[in-house]
Order: sequence, then structure tokens, then C-alpha cells
Amino acid sequence: MTGDSDPAPVSRRRLLTGGAIAVGGALTGGGAVAATVHDDRPAPTVGVLTGPQAGTVTEPFHGRRQAGIATHPQAHASFVAFTLRRETDRAALVRLMRLLTDDAARLTQGQPALADTERELAFLPARLTVTFGFGAGLYRAAGLDDRRPVSIADLPPFTIDRLEPGWSGGDLLVQICADDPLTVAHTQRMIVKDTRPFGTVRWVQQGFRRGHGIQDRPQTQRNILGQLDGTANPKPGTTAFEQAVWVPDGPPWLRDSSTLVVRRIRAELETWDQLGRSDKEFAIGRRLETGAPLTGEVEEDLPDFAATDELGFTVIPDFAHISLAQVPDDRSKILRRPYNYDGVPDAAGRADSGLVFASYQADVERQFLPIQRRLAERDLFNEWITPIGSAVFAIPPGCAPGGWIGEQVLG
Amino acid sequence: MTGDSDPAPVSRRRLLTGGAIAVGGALTGGGAVAATVHDDRPAPTVGVLTGPQAGTVTEPFHGRRQAGIATHPQAHASFVAFTLRRETDRAALVRLMRLLTDDAARLTQGQPALADTERELAFLPARLTVTFGFGAGLYRAAGLDDRRPVSIADLPPFTIDRLEPGWSGGDLLVQICADDPLTVAHTQRMIVKDTRPFGTVRWVQQGFRRGHGIQDRPQTQRNILGQLDGTANPKPGTTAFEQAVWVPDGPPWLRDSSTLVVRRIRAELETWDQLGRSDKEFAIGRRLETGAPLTGEVEEDLPDFAATDELGFTVIPDFAHISLAQVPDDRSKILRRPYNYDGVPDAAGRADSGLVFASYQADVERQFLPIQRRLAERDLFNEWITPIGSAVFAIPPGCAPGGWIGEQVLG
Ligand code: HEM
Ligand code: HEM
Repeated sequence: MTGDSDPAPVSRRRLLTGGAIAVGGALTGGGAVAATVHDDRPAPTVGVLTGPQAGTVTEPFHGRRQAGIATHPQAHASFVAFTLRRETDRAALVRLMRLLTDDAARLTQGQPALADTERELAFLPARLTVTFGFGAGLYRAAGLDDRRPVSIADLPPFTIDRLEPGWSGGDLLVQICADDPLTVAHTQRMIVKDTRPFGTVRWVQQGFRRGHGIQDRPQTQRNILGQLDGTANPKPGTTAFEQAVWVPDGPPWLRDSSTLVVRRIRAELETWDQLGRSDKEFAIGRRLETGAPLTGEVEEDLPDFAATDELGFTVIPDFAHISLAQVPDDRSKILRRPYNYDGVPDAAGRADSGLVFASYQADVERQFLPIQRRLAERDLFNEWITPIGSAVFAIPPGCAPGGWIGEQVLG
Repeated sequence: MTGDSDPAPVSRRRLLTGGAIAVGGALTGGGAVAATVHDDRPAPTVGVLTGPQAGTVTEPFHGRRQAGIATHPQAHASFVAFTLRRETDRAALVRLMRLLTDDAARLTQGQPALADTERELAFLPARLTVTFGFGAGLYRAAGLDDRRPVSIADLPPFTIDRLEPGWSGGDLLVQICADDPLTVAHTQRMIVKDTRPFGTVRWVQQGFRRGHGIQDRPQTQRNILGQLDGTANPKPGTTAFEQAVWVPDGPPWLRDSSTLVVRRIRAELETWDQLGRSDKEFAIGRRLETGAPLTGEVEEDLPDFAATDELGFTVIPDFAHISLAQVPDDRSKILRRPYNYDGVPDAAGRADSGLVFASYQADVERQFLPIQRRLAERDLFNEWITPIGSAVFAIPPGCAPGGWIGEQVLG
């Protein structure tokens, strides 16, 4: 039941055609994570695509840190939050996390879950990652409040907030990401099924970025407001990333852990689209077309927040989003890994769009909150974005083959 | 305002880097439609992907028939149905369809719409097609009931139906398909904006198939029930396809037209997943893994509906889905071009999944209805699928550069 590295049963067909070939991460468009190709799909009966079999690329599941964070963002995501049932105690949580770890270990490697009811849907993992987060309620249910990172709690209220309970909170989070929407849907179904005896679905937020292989930049996405998004993120593989995202030491349940803030942020496209292009650029401090700072030429240019124009005003306004969001050092940075959402417009045609804004950082209090406070107080951009959901989770460390996610916390 | 072939204004950057290179449809995984690559994205400021620039592949917009039908199904779709405002008469409809044609002609070719508020989102069309359908109410509003194909009306009720008004009907339909979800979202927004003065949004159904480049079969998809779906479809480019999908002659508003039935069909996954694999296979008449008929070995094998087992029963049950859905000749076939949907599960974890079932045929009465009647009466599979929405549209012919969709009907 634990996620060992070869979680059989395998089909006869798989034994005949199986075998793993290591390849570079070339398909991921600059992603930092090397990936492996498993060729264990059922043998196709008609001509296969001659191009790269992008669907069979896998991301490693086991490791000291969970996948889905440093992983180059996949095209599709579903964030699923559960409320634990009253009777779900520590022992039940151990059972649950063993079960879900097993599902994740198999599905991410292109193998059906145990008792998978649609096993063929498992054969194209498409860089699937499944990442688990623990909300404050989970520590409480387990009687382990002393192991909860102190900042895993509801964020303090901000005047900009219009939070809806239906998009907020949650005891257990499962973040499911893959380059294929059907893979995400199938994985979500398996996870939800196995969690049922232990909890109810609190909310589900589905989101997307550019489709697999369809993007104009290797590192940054265009979001649904048309902006290049992710420019100033710490880059996976750098010291800055290490320091920003992972807890470096402490007891086993903290070392190699992280934290996640999920905010559902509605884009007020009706009013945003009444702005001219240069007003949109002033609100952020960067150009729409290139992503370059107002003081630069290309996306990679560092913003010069001190540069002034002929009238003595700073070229990047003090109240621009990046002026307020910037931080003085790497340890204060956050990793933004947001997805766009696009719901159904109302009868009048007003969009229901925005970001499932997901921010990873070693410490919510030290990194996320100071930025969010500055933004909430003075960010001009607040006119056009509204937080309507908010939730905070600890991301426990990863596990080795045979282990399970949460073992350092609950074990 | 009409969609001519070079709908400027073009940016300086585009003039410097622009130019169209014709390539084969190799990226589309066996799709029948040759595609062109426009290299008119803004010049990237950082290294671009070395792989195929799948995002810049375009499908032709102009032609005697509308795109988005014979087009190899893209990964993402949004079906948007509008209710016309009371004051939208024939003259207004002409204005609306000129406007929407212009949007579609530009956006499908990777160019921003006129007054596009997020122009950068237009540069990656990712095989975007925009297909227009006319409901009965549109002909009525235009005072042109005599041009309405007789079977463009609500389908007769079936005992299996549990139709919800929120997923049914509509005067104008826009089907938006692309390999990129952000392209679909942006196109939808432009179309909805321009339609606002003329109509309200009645329903929007978003769906997906396997992600771009991520599929195990070139022609068929795995649907959310885990089945290979599309096997018996007529293949684009064949006489069977021609006869099934397109109206061959008649007055200008009928020649090269088609019809579309959109049914929202919920999959009862809770009970479906209680079935064993062989029961699931009996309900359809084909194998889950290979898609082969119960009488064959591979997906391409023709089902032998007469073959019997040692007890004298037909190997493919009489009440199986394909036994009842099969037709005697090409002219009776339909083209199924469905998308999966996956909404948010309820608190108890019950999925909200199914198909946005889209069927194209020359004549609803002659082709779709006999099949649907047989299925409604006797299909075993009805136990596990429930129609919850239904709408019928005429698909008017295509248009040449300078023309507009609907000109043969409304002009
Ligand atoms: C709908 C909501 C939001 C949108 C559309 C948005 C968009 C952007 C854009 C376009 C940039 C510039 C390019 C880049 O570096 O990615 C940016 C930068 C940034 N944003 Fe946001 N943002 C949103 C919400 C937030 C929130 C809630 C936070 C944190 C509380 C945040 C923190 C940051 C940070 C830290 C930067 C980088 C600043 C720098 O060092 O240059 N953003 N955002
Ligand atoms: C959720 C709803 C449905 C599902 C999941 C579904 C699934 C399938 C599957 C798996 C096949 C066999 C493979 C193939 O040829 O594609 C099939 C065949 C077919 N289905 Fe459906 N179907 C659904 C609804 C419908 C409806 C509403 C109609 C028409 C009224 C229809 C008409 C057909 C036809 C014509 C065939 C081909 C039969 C043959 O000639 O072999 N299906 N369907």
C-alpha cells in the first residue's frame, strides 16, 4: 500500500512493451527538472504520432521535497481542498496519506491507481505532479498543533479582501498539475474517491496556463489579463530559489518543507479593459508586449526604481505593483506559480476570470505577508483585482520509495 | 469591417518579422487539414522553444464551408450560446455577423481583434477555429423562417432526457476551439463583448480532449469514461464524410451548410464505476483498452454484429451502444466531435463530468434523430449517461475574404 518504486500489478501488455528511457527535459521548454519517458502505454494499434510522445513524460515523485513546486509549471492544474470529517484522527490521517501517496506515486509514473476504474486514463501522465498541503485543521485533528508551522493559519484580513467561504480555508490540499487536462481530471477523481471516507470536498479550483508546447516565453506565462507573469520569480536551481522556497533545517517535519498560499483573485476585466495600454503598464511597472520594466528594454532588464523622468517623478511609479511587491533580498522572495481561471460569463457577458494565485515560500509570515500588506495598502493595481478566496497550507517534506507524504508530521 | 484577407492594422514589429510559411499538418497528429504557420508573434526577447512552434499554427478561416468541423479536433473548446435581444432584427444581425466574422477572421490567423484589449493574447492562435451556428430563434428574429432548415428546432423529448433550461436552446452559437486554453478564453471574451449589444449569454459549455501533442491515437480520443471515442466516425477527406456532414446542393443558404446538435450528457460515474470492465465493454460493444469491437482485435476491425457465441447469443449484444448507433449507409452517419467536461465535484465527492456531445450532420431529421431514437429506447448505456442539455443549430456556409458568415442567409 505504500508507494514503493514499482507499484505493481502491471498488465501483461506492459510487461511486454515496458521499460523506461531517460531523456532530457527538452520538452518542458526550459524547465529545470529532468524528466523520464516511460514507454508503458498499451501498444497502439494504429500509427502513432511521429513527434515527441509528450504524454508519456513523467516527473519524479519520490524525493526529499515534494514535486509540483520547482517543477516547470504544467499547462493545467486543479487545487482540491478537503474538510476533514469529525472522526478523522491521527491514525485515520496516517491511513489516508498512505493511500493518497500510493495513488500519487503510481499515477505520476503513468501507472493506474490501485482499483483504478479508468486505468487507461493513467497511461499518459503528461508530467503529472500531485502535491499535498496540510491546513491548520489537519494538525488540530491529529493532535499535533506543536508541529504546525506558526504561520499556517488564516491570513489576517485585508481591506481589499472580498473573501467567499466557498473559496477559502481547508484542512487538506491536493494540488494536481499536468500538461493534459484529462490526466488532471482522472487524477482528481481518484484522489477525491480515496479521500471520501476521511473528508468532504470543500472547494476545487481549476486553472490553466498556455497549453503544452504553446508559449511565447520559456519561463513566464501570459496571464488572462495579457501580462507576462513570473518574470521576477526566483529560478529553480539557483540559491535564490533554495532560500526562498524551502525550509533549510529544523525538526524532520520542517526541513525540506514549504508553505503555500492560494488566493483566488478575480480580475475586474470590465474596468481593466477601459484602461489604455500605457495606464495598464503604469499600474504594473512593466510593458505589456515585452514584459520589460518601464526603465528597460527587455524582460530580463532589472527595474531601476530610482530612475526619474524630466519632471522628477520616478519612471516606475511608487504605487506600481512591482514597486510595492519587490523585496530587498533573496530570502524575502516568494515563488508565484499561478494559474488562470475562466468561468462562465454572466448573462450580461461580464467575465468570471482571474488567477488562482499560488505562492510558495519557506515562511508565510516572513515572506508572503510583508508583500501582501504593502500591496493591500497602496498597490494601484488593486483597482482591478479582488481577492475572493484565501487558504494557507504547510507543504510537508517529500518521501522516499516506501515512505509516504506526511510521515515526518504524522508518523 | 468585413473579414478581408489582410485585416490590418499590423504592428511595426509584425511588418519586420512577418510572413507566412506553408507547412504540412504534421503537428495535428493526422488531422486532415493542412495548416499554415504565421510567424508574426512579437519577436521574443529571450530564447524561444526549439521545438515546433505549435502555438503559431493556424487553420484557414475563409472557404466555402466553415472551419471547426472537418478540422482535426483541437484540445479545448468553448460552446457559447446567446439569446438575441428583442430589438435585434435582420439589419442588426447583419451588423453583428459582420463584426463577429471580422473577429474570427483576425483571431484565427493570430491577429488581434479590432480594439482588442489584450492584443498579445492573439499572437498564438494554436489552430483556433470559430464556427457559427444559427438557432431557430435567429431565423425568426430576422423574419427569414423560410430559410431555416426544417429540422432546426428543439429535438422531440426523449424519456431519457433530464434537460435543464440553463444548458438548452439558444439563438446564436459560437463554437471556439483551439489547442490552447488561453486562446479559447481570449477569443470567447472578444466574441462575447462584441455580441453584448445584440444578445445575452444563455449558456457556455467548456470542454477538453487530450492536450495538444498528448494522445495515444491520432484519430480517436479517450473520453472521461476511459473509452476510445470517435472510432466509427467518418474520416475527413472521404466521400463518407462529405455525404454525412455537408449539404450538397439547394439554395445558397443551404449548399455547403451543415447542422449541429449539442447535447450536454452527464456521465453517471458513481454507478458506471461499479461495473466491471467486461460489463463496461458489453454496454458499448467495444473493448476499453484497444477500442476493438467485441468481435475483433484492433480498433479498425469492423464490428460483426451477426457473430454469435456458443450459446447462440450475438457476441456484440443487441442492446449495446454501437449495435443501436450503427447505421446502414454513409449518408446516415453523423460526425461526433465531443469534448469532455469536468466540473466541480459536490461535497460528497460525486463528480460533475460528462460530454459536451457535438454531432454534425447534413440533416438532423434524417441522420441524428433515428440514431437518437434507437438509443433513447433501448441503449443499455443509458443507465450511465443522462442528457441534461440540448440545442440545435444550422451551420451556415463559409465565406470568402471580404464576405461574412451568414451572408447567404441574412444578406
Ligand atoms: C490577479 C493578481 C495578480 C496579477 C495579475 C499579478 C501580476 C503581476 C505581474 C504582471 C508582475 C510583473 C512580472 C513578474 O515579475 O511576474 C508581477 C510581479 C510581482 N507580483 Fe504580482 N500579480 C498579482 C497578485 C500578486 C499578489 C497577491 C502578490 C503577493 C502578495 C504578488 C506578488 C508579486 C511579486 C513579488 C512580483 C515581483 C516583483 C519584483 O520583484 O519585480 N502579485 N505580478
Ligand atoms: C456520454 C455520451 C456518449 C458516450 C460516452 C458515447 C461513447 C461512444 C463510444 C465509446 C463509442 C464506440 C467508439 C466510437 O465509434 O466512437 C460510440 C459510438 C457511437 N456513438 Fe456514442 N456515446 C455517447 C452518446 C452518443 C449519442 C447521444 C449518440 C447519437 C445520438 C451517439 C452515437 C454514436 C454513434 C453513431 C457511434 C458509432 C456506431 C458505429 O457505427 O459503430 N453516441 N459512442
